Amino acid sequence: MDLWLKESQIEDAVMTYRVKQTLIREKTEYQDLAIVDTYSFGRMLVLDGIVQTTVRDEYVYHEMITHIPLFTHPNPKKVLVVGGGDGGAVKEILKHPTVEKVVLCEIDGEVVKQCKKYLPEISFALEDPKCEIFIGDGIKYVHEHRNSFDVVIVDSTDPFGAAEGLFGGSFYKEIYECLTKDGIFVAQTETPFYLPEVVRDVYKDAKAVFPITKLFMAGIPTYPSGFWSFTLGSKRYDPQKVNLSSTADINTKYYTKELHIASFVLPKFIEDLIR
Amino acid sequence: MDLWLKESQIEDAVMTYRVKQTLIREKTEYQDLAIVDTYSFGRMLVLDGIVQTTVRDEYVYHEMITHIPLFTHPNPKKVLVVGGGDGGAVKEILKHPTVEKVVLCEIDGEVVKQCKKYLPEISFALEDPKCEIFIGDGIKYVHEHRNSFDVVIVDSTDPFGAAEGLFGGSFYKEIYECLTKDGIFVAQTETPFYLPEVVRDVYKDAKAVFPITKLFMAGIPTYPSGFWSFTLGSKRYDPQKVNLSSTADINTKYYTKELHIASFVLPKFIEDLIR
Repeated sequence: MDLWLKESQIEDAVMTYRVKQTLIREKTEYQDLAIVDTYSFGRMLVLDGIVQTTVRDEYVYHEMITHIPLFTHPNPKKVLVVGGGDGGAVKEILKHPTVEKVVLCEIDGEVVKQCKKYLPEISFALEDPKCEIFIGDGIKYVHEHRNSFDVVIVDSTDPFGAAEGLFGGSFYKEIYECLTKDGIFVAQTETPFYLPEVVRDVYKDAKAVFPITKLFMAGIPTYPSGFWSFTLGSKRYDPQKVNLSSTADINTKYYTKELHIASFVLPKFIEDLIR
Repeated sequence: MDLWLKESQIEDAVMTYRVKQTLIREKTEYQDLAIVDTYSFGRMLVLDGIVQTTVRDEYVYHEMITHIPLFTHPNPKKVLVVGGGDGGAVKEILKHPTVEKVVLCEIDGEVVKQCKKYLPEISFALEDPKCEIFIGDGIKYVHEHRNSFDVVIVDSTDPFGAAEGLFGGSFYKEIYECLTKDGIFVAQTETPFYLPEVVRDVYKDAKAVFPITKLFMAGIPTYPSGFWSFTLGSKRYDPQKVNLSSTADINTKYYTKELHIASFVLPKFIEDLIR
């Protein structure tokens, strides 16, 4: 049997992966969850037909969504991840020696359970004593925790269905309140090649809330177009002006201190998009 | 009829595009040539089943392979493009006011002919009086023109089949001789996600020939992984140290002077690959 996964995010430009085996497929309370083993990227988590993370390229996304805010903040102790049930962001966050506590707030407990079982090299840090897992609504959690986190990372699915409320000005205002007085927020914000209006609107919404708002980019082969944006909002520290010379040396495969700065330099069409 | 193009470069991770219409399909002396009209990227040139360029995203590749060397050189007058029969590189090169002559040396005359017919918004500059088209073997052309060009751009297909001889040390030595005393060479050199050994070998081969050899990256949605490398070899000018403050203002969609510098800052795994 020649089994292929056809990714369903972009209608007329469809990425397909040859599949060795489907390890789990189920309807959860929130979404269609699958973990499949592929020839090109190894095991991958697929939610509602869209690839979320793979064992081969997860490092790009998880390093960039975490190390940029955590090295921009001089002393991050408490970190909140909204979404991110695969545990990849937590794995990277716990490489920072200043971090005392990470809360993972994931709406779908099945994602955590199945990633622990089938993606241990991504999810292992979820067992760390510094990590607290809260299964529930991120919007509610953020609302109920004022002035509580140095960094908030929104590691969500795309802005349709379950994650829709995690994009937009009203949630960013709640995040602002959830952050400490010099806190930093980051979210994954799609690709400007296919969804320019999402990139533009998220940037505009974040900019209305945070005094410093910037976009940065990374090359992620299993996300549509391969060229992905992240939006960062900061109360005090500018991620491009931070002094990185004395930050901790951590083991990475994508992030470097030089790339930290360079990833904020945008192609002209993206600059124009968010002007 | 639901018509899809399945790209054949990467065996188990296959990009597919929904096709409106096949405009031309023929076996040339060198390859299988097609130009198809797609829903997501408009008209695209496909050689031996691999997408070469599309009307929607051609600007990334063509701007980055040309403006980086042409702005690194202080006064580029004569430029050679090896391959590049679609004319996209010539279009960008002719935006530089210093350029007096561009030679396009393309082995397959059918590529030039069909791109003129079906991709006029990419190929129009091939009609410019400053552009001379030579249909023939790039290796032979380079060998026969010593000390002749300020910039040589290798805009080839992948290093298999017709373009195999355009990758590797013996060709780079010929290019070195074909360049003027302060000349610059650039080639498209695949993606480090899927073909790390090509990226590594090309870099090593170029480094053995040129005193300054550097890799830069760009996000190209229709190339495998979306994250593409280019290798630059230079006799004298360092592309990262050049003063860009007084260069000509040209109209671009991807390239900026800031990105010129930033695109040489590599992710850790690519740094490691070419160390």
